[in-house]
Amino acid sequence: MSEPSNRTELSTLGEFGLIERIASRVELSQKSSVKGIGDDAAVIDPEALHQVITTDMLVEGVHFDLSYVPLRHLGYKAVVVNLSDVYAMNAQPRQITVALAISNRFPLEAIDELYDGMLLACKKYGVDIVGGDTCSSRSGLIISITAIGAVAKDRITYRSGAKAGDLLVVSGDLGGAYMGLQILEREKAVFQGTPNAQPDLSGHDYILERQLKPEARKDVIDMFQELKLQPTAMIDISDGLASEAMHLAHKSGLGVKLYEEKIPMDPTTIGTAREFNLDPTMCALNGGEDYELLFTIAQSDFEKVKGSPHFSVIGHMTDNAGGYQLIDRQGGQHELKAQGWDAFLKK
Amino acid sequence: MSEPSNRTELSTLGEFGLIERIASRVELSQKSSVKGIGDDAAVIDPEALHQVITTDMLVEGVHFDLSYVPLRHLGYKAVVVNLSDVYAMNAQPRQITVALAISNRFPLEAIDELYDGMLLACKKYGVDIVGGDTCSSRSGLIISITAIGAVAKDRITYRSGAKAGDLLVVSGDLGGAYMGLQILEREKAVFQGTPNAQPDLSGHDYILERQLKPEARKDVIDMFQELKLQPTAMIDISDGLASEAMHLAHKSGLGVKLYEEKIPMDPTTIGTAREFNLDPTMCALNGGEDYELLFTIAQSDFEKVKGSPHFSVIGHMTDNAGGYQLIDRQGGQHELKAQGWDAFLKK
Repeated sequence: MSEPSNRTELSTLGEFGLIERIASRVELSQKSSVKGIGDDAAVIDPEALHQVITTDMLVEGVHFDLSYVPLRHLGYKAVVVNLSDVYAMNAQPRQITVALAISNRFPLEAIDELYDGMLLACKKYGVDIVGGDTCSSRSGLIISITAIGAVAKDRITYRSGAKAGDLLVVSGDLGGAYMGLQILEREKAVFQGTPNAQPDLSGHDYILERQLKPEARKDVIDMFQELKLQPTAMIDISDGLASEAMHLAHKSGLGVKLYEEKIPMDPTTIGTAREFNLDPTMCALNGGEDYELLFTIAQSDFEKVKGSPHFSVIGHMTDNAGGYQLIDRQGGQHELKAQGWDAFLKK
Repeated sequence: MSEPSNRTELSTLGEFGLIERIASRVELSQKSSVKGIGDDAAVIDPEALHQVITTDMLVEGVHFDLSYVPLRHLGYKAVVVNLSDVYAMNAQPRQITVALAISNRFPLEAIDELYDGMLLACKKYGVDIVGGDTCSSRSGLIISITAIGAVAKDRITYRSGAKAGDLLVVSGDLGGAYMGLQILEREKAVFQGTPNAQPDLSGHDYILERQLKPEARKDVIDMFQELKLQPTAMIDISDGLASEAMHLAHKSGLGVKLYEEKIPMDPTTIGTAREFNLDPTMCALNGGEDYELLFTIAQSDFEKVKGSPHFSVIGHMTDNAGGYQLIDRQGGQHELKAQGWDAFLKK
């Protein structure tokens, strides 16, 4: 983390001073946000829509490493990962609350940077910060964000609604965020060995952005509306394609068949994987943090996604409950395994 | 913290195993909880009511000390303090989400105890756990709870609605939670000096319970409904009476006059304060964590609260914006000052 040139200790503001500063930066843009920061609770007008709610907690040293993640990017990503869960319900996010625990090694300027990133994401996705909590931590930074979204009752999309024969579709491309992380970890290791070394990040812009500044697929949810396409089941890809495909199948009481050759990957991702002697397909299957949407559609809806640059049909659901298969480029069958990221094993 | 006799490492379950275990213990009781744990987000049917939302984060070593707070009590209190904020909007809480960061010094049995307490509070207050997040922490336990409540649009009660001349009313009695904390801190200090000493907690049951197992005033919100009483402004007392009275006055653009002799205190609280050479009134004004409701009512509603054992009229709002006064037992005027708990100063 680069130290800002001005350093204002948080203790000079106190908790109320910090809350007032944050409140002064926040504007409400959603008509459904009736009351934001400044009372015992925020007030939301549901406008006759069902509400969805999701929470994520990010812990320094577990989920992020401030030695290479700028606070602005961290704030942006912390918001985006929550919004991604809302989109995965086919809902539109409208409000978030932000709870922060901050160690006194962070000056006010650092908190401002973090909020710069959060507010940028809020502006881009049309979401209001309506509340939160701010307290001190004995070590490091902890961010807990809760997002609220709205969706018509008949458009809610669960993980459990897929039918046998439904097509499995994914947005965007996969594995990039994971390869971006490998680059950052490599350059950190080099830097630790040779502190004067300049990090070599050239040629990796795309995958670094996938890792450091991911986007949630609001555009996909909007496209569903335009295409009059109702996915039968949906999940966002935070832990890797394999794990998420298995979740959809398991929750729907089905099996799934995935075709390796259909998995969309960017050439940068493939090239970097080879550079690291990694199998690109494995990076897409188990890498995680891509925040693409994985969903199923009835075969009769195939025409609506066919030829779209945003969507790839990568497999289909089967009535073989518990059967999770990967078909390789030679037509060989492999059992699909989830090696998704696990918070308690990653130490 | 007493070590449970069985110790199951969290790493043997992994994140998904822990989530499944938590999900298996949670039952949905609210008709408005359409979907709980197990998808990308929970789904809530607002049933044509406005929704309120509030978040609190509790950090080990800052907000709680596991050397004298049992995990079961901590879980209970963590839920209650959030519900208290929902009641302070005149709303009924219905759902919570729970985000936990857990260091590997906690075995599964400890997390079970924490959830025992949270589930007990949920059962008592009729609230569903509909989602959350569970991750590892590098040090200690962090709990972030978000509560959602529902209220008819015309019954929402803000801090800002008080009018000059409105009566200031408080539920229950004050200062007890603070004195309970003093007892616990004293016995901890004795124990640290003499590890074989038995803590002397006798005769302090009431104030210890106020500190360790506080309740939120759902009954007061129910009474408002029965009495057809619409408070003009309301706040819950988490930081102390002085600070909260000033918040109500400030947000309403008014002044406030408080009468020392009217402040309700339990004899145990008064006795313990004297034992510690503390002014009982100061403990009520600045102690905090009582989770009583402080509200204003029109003078014409006085008959509705008069003679109730649950309510004390302790002052009134004035048109002297920014004038915050305490009238002592001899009729002397003092400027009211908030010395409420400040997360960044308390180290």
